[in-house]
Amino acid sequence: MLNFKYILRTLSILLLTIAGVMLIPLSLTFYYKETHLLMSFISPIVSILLFSLLIFTFTKKNPSQQFSTRDAFLLVTLSWIFAAFFGALPFYISGHIPSFTNAYFETMSGFTTTGASILTNIEAMPMSLLFWRSLTHWLGGMGIVVLLVAIMQSLGTGGLRLLQAESPGPTIDKVTPRITQMAKILWMVYVGLSILEIILLLIGGMNLFDASTHTFGTMATGGFSPKGKSVGYYNSPFIHYVITIFMILAGMNFVLFFGLLTGKIKEVWKNTELKVYLWIFFLATGIVTLSLYGKVFPSISKSIQFASFQVASILTTTGFATTDFAQWPTMAKSVLFILMFIGGCAGSTGGGIKVIRFITLFKLGINQMKYFLHPRGVFNIRIDGKIIKKDVVYVVAGFFFLYIIFLLVVTLVVASGGYDIVTSFSSALATLGNIGPGFGKIGPALNYAFYPAYIKWVLSFAMMAGRLEILTVLVVFTPLFWKIR
Amino acid sequence: MLNFKYILRTLSILLLTIAGVMLIPLSLTFYYKETHLLMSFISPIVSILLFSLLIFTFTKKNPSQQFSTRDAFLLVTLSWIFAAFFGALPFYISGHIPSFTNAYFETMSGFTTTGASILTNIEAMPMSLLFWRSLTHWLGGMGIVVLLVAIMQSLGTGGLRLLQAESPGPTIDKVTPRITQMAKILWMVYVGLSILEIILLLIGGMNLFDASTHTFGTMATGGFSPKGKSVGYYNSPFIHYVITIFMILAGMNFVLFFGLLTGKIKEVWKNTELKVYLWIFFLATGIVTLSLYGKVFPSISKSIQFASFQVASILTTTGFATTDFAQWPTMAKSVLFILMFIGGCAGSTGGGIKVIRFITLFKLGINQMKYFLHPRGVFNIRIDGKIIKKDVVYVVAGFFFLYIIFLLVVTLVVASGGYDIVTSFSSALATLGNIGPGFGKIGPALNYAFYPAYIKWVLSFAMMAGRLEILTVLVVFTPLFWKIR
Repeated sequence: MLNFKYILRTLSILLLTIAGVMLIPLSLTFYYKETHLLMSFISPIVSILLFSLLIFTFTKKNPSQQFSTRDAFLLVTLSWIFAAFFGALPFYISGHIPSFTNAYFETMSGFTTTGASILTNIEAMPMSLLFWRSLTHWLGGMGIVVLLVAIMQSLGTGGLRLLQAESPGPTIDKVTPRITQMAKILWMVYVGLSILEIILLLIGGMNLFDASTHTFGTMATGGFSPKGKSVGYYNSPFIHYVITIFMILAGMNFVLFFGLLTGKIKEVWKNTELKVYLWIFFLATGIVTLSLYGKVFPSISKSIQFASFQVASILTTTGFATTDFAQWPTMAKSVLFILMFIGGCAGSTGGGIKVIRFITLFKLGINQMKYFLHPRGVFNIRIDGKIIKKDVVYVVAGFFFLYIIFLLVVTLVVASGGYDIVTSFSSALATLGNIGPGFGKIGPALNYAFYPAYIKWVLSFAMMAGRLEILTVLVVFTPLFWKIR
Repeated sequence: MLNFKYILRTLSILLLTIAGVMLIPLSLTFYYKETHLLMSFISPIVSILLFSLLIFTFTKKNPSQQFSTRDAFLLVTLSWIFAAFFGALPFYISGHIPSFTNAYFETMSGFTTTGASILTNIEAMPMSLLFWRSLTHWLGGMGIVVLLVAIMQSLGTGGLRLLQAESPGPTIDKVTPRITQMAKILWMVYVGLSILEIILLLIGGMNLFDASTHTFGTMATGGFSPKGKSVGYYNSPFIHYVITIFMILAGMNFVLFFGLLTGKIKEVWKNTELKVYLWIFFLATGIVTLSLYGKVFPSISKSIQFASFQVASILTTTGFATTDFAQWPTMAKSVLFILMFIGGCAGSTGGGIKVIRFITLFKLGINQMKYFLHPRGVFNIRIDGKIIKKDVVYVVAGFFFLYIIFLLVVTLVVASGGYDIVTSFSSALATLGNIGPGFGKIGPALNYAFYPAYIKWVLSFAMMAGRLEILTVLVVFTPLFWKIR
């Protein structure tokens, strides 16, 4: 039996949190003299209050009933669906996004930290709505951090097993006895890094509004910017580099920060995923720089600046842009295209397939060769000196396959609207990987507004599926899920 | 220790076979009055004779020494490399393909049954050379059938294990006690189906030359045609349907024909891979037909005719075309794009990832969901009622990952030449999957001639890697392979 009471109550608490956070853009309507938008924020807040009141009236706490893995899957999926629904109301009620499909797409894109937008004229939006738009990123990113902890807390070994599947490696096991301590530290890291970035961007010359919204987009690896030209609105190399560095930080496994803060610097430095992640970043930046130098930018420093920014942005699945990379040489674009598959590290706010999965599968590939040469040999996959259980490798392999299949199916749905293959494929890749911009008709200088409603809904679903690592979402939509006694 | 003597001797026998077969186009030079090409065929034949003489003089038979899996890998890889080398000589020496890179590319494309061509004016080639070009397909396809048997014969259980990895499912085990019988039957099936197709194409109105060459292209799932417009040169629906049906037959597991001929029709019909393969064919044909009807062809029958042909051609990785599908609606093109990933059945002459691997990984994905819901459950992957061992699933998962990685790396190499993403990606996919034509600059009405030499060599390598299922080739190029005592 699913524990609906618990699910609905937890969902209510989550929505109440969102309502609480909505008070921030609500108060901004006074500051920016946009009081005609007051009702646009009050309505969803009141709706959430009524919704939660209903749930708390008709469900009673029953501490004896267990909270199972299945409950967690349903809760997580419902959380994102409902959050996007209530979060979309300010845009819709205000009339600034007149189509509910568009408002839902934009909000789902926000909460899933994708950054794909349907806005054709961003600067025309009121400030309070733009702030709320960026805030959905930060909340979504926070949600992922919460999830990281919540899964560990509520599910015990089951949750750990789940988390191991998501992020194989030794880091998780070592921290389990200190989950509460870690939870606090992870939050502190997320909030602390955000404050630090805001300060640095203020120093770089941004105003508080722009510094905050861009920070929300960075730390959540989201990519919404209140500027139509994204970060390209600013010319300051300092601003570009600050955002580059913080994108890279946001794409790191947050559990590593816990390690750093507890003084285990050596262990963090030896972390395989981090090393590979940084190698990919530097290697890709190198290739893109060479491809840009002389052709797009006359100076090597400009080439490095724009290359490192865009590589960090796509690798971490943020999606910010400092220039229209659709105009770059094919070599540079191909590198970005490949980075779209990879994504950030496990336990980060980044999307994509994630670096650790590539490492695991790469080692699986190497093992296959050894196995071919020594058919009777026994080979284990080791990461950070620890053997990865076959079951975990299984999960990773299954995930990778489903990801590719999901990608091809979504591509087909988009193509059914008559769009070219580059546009269709990169729309699927950019939403499923929570990146945002892609190639073709959804390049960095463009947006998703032109798609018909059914494609927007499918892409919204893809964003959610990508965010929740596909299996979590898919499993809820199987008959199997509902059949269990 | 590698058994070089055995490897070189077997390689010589293979090359002598090729030299023997070269006598056919050699004699055609008389029939078509192209006797100025005599030396172009005599030279490689003499070269092979000298090469083999050298090897047989300096190596001695040592029946006591074992033939290991490693030897098999090296032999198979060398076979394709040398076959393409000697096979390229007639084109190169005759001066009709003046660049050796181009001649090698064309021949590798032939032997790997890819069908990617660098010829810009096919009809301008002499008949004997065109016949040899198509014959490389048929020999290559035959080579794969031989390989199927050879692996089983020479490697015993090791070979079986290897083959199981390649084609999981119950069919292999049941036939092992009758390997010699099966070998004969597989050859008979390949030759028999070829003769049958030639007869049907003659009935359809082709001359013997065209019927033979198109049959070579069909049965090997190759795709070379002696016509610039490929099968589109013929308007007869009968010819189109004959080739469609024989492409589908060539994409089936040849072991199933053995089952059919030994009267196990029921078991063949229950074969999961065959069922899924046919489902994909009919489903894809349905979607493409709907996409073409009214837009490209006014009649539903024409739509079905062209849709079924192109779906069969791409699914089986043949690469024939009856029309320039680059001009088709995006929906039809997207379906073909997705089919390019799939490929034929295991144990067929088709390339690609293969249907059975998709079934295995799909079941792995389903199992992951079950496992998520019941973390303590034990779930097995069953195909045709039999449990697939975890090791086999491992190999399949490793293969799938390496295939995607290989695809992205080759894409990057092609893109380094400044080509757009569609061209780069589909060149990689079309060569690695042994398909031939793709999208962009290598569409069905175009060719690979424009690429610089280094890209042609990389694509030649990709064709070989795809043909030999990647691991076989990659493993030979690892230091690991050469380090073993």
